[in-house]
Amino acid sequence: MNNAKLEKQIQFIIEIDKLKHVFRRTLLINGSRNENDAEHSWHLAVMSLLLQEYSSKKDIDISRVIKMLLVHDIVEIDAGDTFCYDMQANKNRKEREEKAADRIFNILPKEQASELRQLWDEFEERKTPEARFAASLDRLQPLLHNYNTKGKAWKEHKVTSDMVFERNKYMKDGSPVLWEYAEAIINDSIQKGYLNK
Amino acid sequence: MNNAKLEKQIQFIIEIDKLKHVFRRTLLINGSRNENDAEHSWHLAVMSLLLQEYSSKKDIDISRVIKMLLVHDIVEIDAGDTFCYDMQANKNRKEREEKAADRIFNILPKEQASELRQLWDEFEERKTPEARFAASLDRLQPLLHNYNTKGKAWKEHKVTSDMVFERNKYMKDGSPVLWEYAEAIINDSIQKGYLNK
Repeated sequence: MNNAKLEKQIQFIIEIDKLKHVFRRTLLINGSRNENDAEHSWHLAVMSLLLQEYSSKKDIDISRVIKMLLVHDIVEIDAGDTFCYDMQANKNRKEREEKAADRIFNILPKEQASELRQLWDEFEERKTPEARFAASLDRLQPLLHNYNTKGKAWKEHKVTSDMVFERNKYMKDGSPVLWEYAEAIINDSIQKGYLNK
Repeated sequence: MNNAKLEKQIQFIIEIDKLKHVFRRTLLINGSRNENDAEHSWHLAVMSLLLQEYSSKKDIDISRVIKMLLVHDIVEIDAGDTFCYDMQANKNRKEREEKAADRIFNILPKEQASELRQLWDEFEERKTPEARFAASLDRLQPLLHNYNTKGKAWKEHKVTSDMVFERNKYMKDGSPVLWEYAEAIINDSIQKGYLNK
């Protein structure tokens, strides 16, 4: 076997297995453990398939949304999951993640390295309708998990409703319908005592 | 909020969180634990993006391949992961999985239930080039994991090289290049003592 290109691709495929060890603050819906980035990315990709009709822009390129969601957290293999409400850690998040992207995507053959980097940059910049919709799903999913675990992770990390509204309000750009749904479950969470004011 | 359609979609999204609890026989590449179906599905979807050039059919509909891979194991929420070398369990696998598909996909609004069911049927039947390529990746990924964990799961489950060749040979239909690569790592595994004859 002498296929240098395939060897690089396989090396990358082996490298990203590490995403299964990067844990998020979010709990699984049965509350048994924290969610990892790989299964989170799968969940978002399926969500994008099912919820595409709610995107702000009609006839969105859903295949691009799925691709973005599949690769959006890969940099966390090196940079770790930065808790969205940790202001200190967020100060150098971008720098840590750029460095990770430089290393990890470049395991791939040049063209594919550049394709995945572009997908990740697009997701991070949230300028295209596809990136905005993808970002909305990335906000909605942990809300669903928090709501269905009675706010266990919110309480553990002392997250308040102001923080949740502030963090999630740009969901509206990607999907007004999903934002309306999110607002309803945030308000219900406050009422039920899952989320403190 | 009065959106019965969205409620069904959300209910399905919450239901499939359970796929994160369905464990396969395959170990993660660092050997620390078994892999679950959700993170496995993510891994395959990324692989399909990167390896599409090796599909038997050129200009494959890669978006359909990704969709199939994202949903191919969802039935295992009810039916469990059937170990591919367990002949007894495989006797009624199809029946158990059909029943699971009837329940789980039908949580969705009718049109989407039917769309996902078609994707799953197509994957299972392996008649289209897209399904054949998807199936090849579903074979290649555990091989990579077994090879990179020195055959730990193979040994634990008393899997021999004959069984591996028999199980994986139809990878050739979906991708001759990937089958050639797979043959090389199976042979190397035998030589290195990761896999018994």
